Amino acid sequence: MSTGHEGPAAGLSKARIEALTDGVFAVAMTLLILDIRVPVVANVTQLPRELLALWPRCASYAISFLMLGIYWVGQHNQFHVIRHTDRALLWINILFLMTISFVPFSTALLSSYPRQQIAVVVYGGNLIAIGLILYGHWSYATHGRRLVDPELDERTVRLVDRRILIGPAMFGLAIVLSFFSLTAALAVFALAPLWYFVPGRIDRHLSGAS
Amino acid sequence: MSTGHEGPAAGLSKARIEALTDGVFAVAMTLLILDIRVPVVANVTQLPRELLALWPRCASYAISFLMLGIYWVGQHNQFHVIRHTDRALLWINILFLMTISFVPFSTALLSSYPRQQIAVVVYGGNLIAIGLILYGHWSYATHGRRLVDPELDERTVRLVDRRILIGPAMFGLAIVLSFFSLTAALAVFALAPLWYFVPGRIDRHLSGAS
Amino acid sequence: MSTGHEGPAAGLSKARIEALTDGVFAVAMTLLILDIRVPVVANVTQLPRELLALWPRCASYAISFLMLGIYWVGQHNQFHVIRHTDRALLWINILFLMTISFVPFSTALLSSYPRQQIAVVVYGGNLIAIGLILYGHWSYATHGRRLVDPELDERTVRLVDRRILIGPAMFGLAIVLSFFSLTAALAVFALAPLWYFVPGRIDRHLSGAS
Amino acid sequence: MSTGHEGPAAGLSKARIEALTDGVFAVAMTLLILDIRVPVVANVTQLPRELLALWPRCASYAISFLMLGIYWVGQHNQFHVIRHTDRALLWINILFLMTISFVPFSTALLSSYPRQQIAVVVYGGNLIAIGLILYGHWSYATHGRRLVDPELDERTVRLVDRRILIGPAMFGLAIVLSFFSLTAALAVFALAPLWYFVPGRIDRHLSGAS
Repeated sequence: MSTGHEGPAAGLSKARIEALTDGVFAVAMTLLILDIRVPVVANVTQLPRELLALWPRCASYAISFLMLGIYWVGQHNQFHVIRHTDRALLWINILFLMTISFVPFSTALLSSYPRQQIAVVVYGGNLIAIGLILYGHWSYATHGRRLVDPELDERTVRLVDRRILIGPAMFGLAIVLSFFSLTAALAVFALAPLWYFVPGRIDRHLSGAS
Repeated sequence: MSTGHEGPAAGLSKARIEALTDGVFAVAMTLLILDIRVPVVANVTQLPRELLALWPRCASYAISFLMLGIYWVGQHNQFHVIRHTDRALLWINILFLMTISFVPFSTALLSSYPRQQIAVVVYGGNLIAIGLILYGHWSYATHGRRLVDPELDERTVRLVDRRILIGPAMFGLAIVLSFFSLTAALAVFALAPLWYFVPGRIDRHLSGAS
Repeated sequence: MSTGHEGPAAGLSKARIEALTDGVFAVAMTLLILDIRVPVVANVTQLPRELLALWPRCASYAISFLMLGIYWVGQHNQFHVIRHTDRALLWINILFLMTISFVPFSTALLSSYPRQQIAVVVYGGNLIAIGLILYGHWSYATHGRRLVDPELDERTVRLVDRRILIGPAMFGLAIVLSFFSLTAALAVFALAPLWYFVPGRIDRHLSGAS
Repeated sequence: MSTGHEGPAAGLSKARIEALTDGVFAVAMTLLILDIRVPVVANVTQLPRELLALWPRCASYAISFLMLGIYWVGQHNQFHVIRHTDRALLWINILFLMTISFVPFSTALLSSYPRQQIAVVVYGGNLIAIGLILYGHWSYATHGRRLVDPELDERTVRLVDRRILIGPAMFGLAIVLSFFSLTAALAVFALAPLWYFVPGRIDRHLSGAS
């Protein structure tokens, strides 16, 4: 696992950062389900109606699960081209994980108060923070080809830049929209993951780079 | 870990998908226990009776743990023959994990309302969804030998097909039975894991393929 | 990770069983802390007394953490000499994990009712079940050298046998003692881990075997 | 994963200790968020105020996440130079993990009672215990170069010594300060992580050693 050939990595090997990251994502994803609780009903005939009333929580669960999936893929893609690690990169990762494991809270807030603008702002703000830290992670690693293959071409770097920043841009838009229509803001959150499902030019580029 | 030799994988290496998968399964399995709570009794003489009354929750715990075990083995077997990954496969996996981490909820629903048909339908529906996504995963990977060894023989592909679909078929049967007898439906859930314990022809085939 | 060279393993590679095992242990160990809750006090002057009153829960936490540690080391040692896996071994492992992830419940029961014999019996019974499954795991793997190095000497096999069975024997003794003195039974649980801290002949043997 | 070349390790390979460690850290970090609960308000106009009132819990969350990050890096750095493992090292690791997974409790205590000295003492005591066990881990591994490269130079050993002990020293100071000013004690906790963000001489040394 820790191969000891990480060069200027101060012993902070890629494999263990990946292991901690995968662990935090796995736990954060699975904790999302704790927000959907079995209804306690006085009369069992109410159970179907009470279960239907859980749909906003189920929707939040699905959306946040996909959002975490998007960011997991994002961190993953970066580590695919990162060759070395250093202390700064490690701490950027820990900050990244701190915002990731905040998602079960902001999701629970949104599913509890889907019609309150502040819940939309907190949720969107959390997603923006994750995206910006991930952007900082990439900028730090690629600046002067610090921790990546020196041959990594500039186009790939910029393609990844753009791809990461689209997330925060969409979530910023959702926050702006929330001043006019909460429904529109929520729709942006619901539709954002679709954008990431389709393979983009980045896939061809990272394939080529590997 | 991430070897960089995944070919058309856009940096989405097998090892990390496996790590996330194993993490989500480990957490989902262990969260099941949170559904069994220590009874609060007014008088300690009631404790033995209250503990006995937990048996439906203990049964649900055991059944769901084994169900998750079955699907873990299933995903595992597929990854044993999958050689490459791509963005679509990755997202199928994330959807798969989304239904996996829903199991602690559907289990808690069933153990809270074991005599309500809707609980049986939700639980069975969850298990069917997992099975169908896993089937889609296999179909996607093997179609035109997209992500598997080109030499993988057609019989193995069809054996795996059949083996995966038996799960959803059994759970669909449980849902149908629930219209007539909840006890019969629950019995199907309880007995389903037994089918997967015995080695099948698939073991010989996958061994041969490896 | 999954190397594909597991021979008659039906695609069930050692590495992923280990990953699932480590994940379940990590979650079960960490969930133990959820049993120790921050006291809610009417008057903050009561806080120190309320914190002191948590000591039985802290003791249970420490003991169960060490028990899980013991069994983690035990499974670990076995996998060190196991060369192959098969479907049966995999399912023995899943049953093993099912009893492992039951520990947060039996621990919470014991810490809630430390003076009730039934709590001692359930806790001891859980630990015995884990130990016997681990014993079955070893017997299955070594019988006729089924999944281990054919050169593995008989003395090592019997040393491991004995070492595993000492756990269930101690916990069985605790249950017997609980009919006479709960304090004595609890003392057995508290002292049992000490036995496993000191290196035994098994360490030299397994080292030699590796 | 378990390579079988660990020498006098009794089958307790580095890779699996790392996997368990990464798992416990990932769960402990992510469980911290459970301490921040969605406010239940009678009137939604109170929601913004109630969310603002969560700031001490958010601060505790961030500080404890970073503290766990610091100790994760610390264990990580040690394992980078540790070549072998033995039963004693394994049990020191399990004790280390036991204090790590206590952090969600001591954090919840501090965030519930930030103005009570006893909460500061328990939190600081927990962090000191982690640090001292980590120090013992290093001393055990390096004493007579027991489990590290025999060529590891004495300066590196002492640099790591010092770096580890600074943590407990700072947290001991926080406890002393808490007798005079709780605010000053809390400030020490908040500022401590900053010290670890900047690369130190240790980075160059461990790089050189690898």
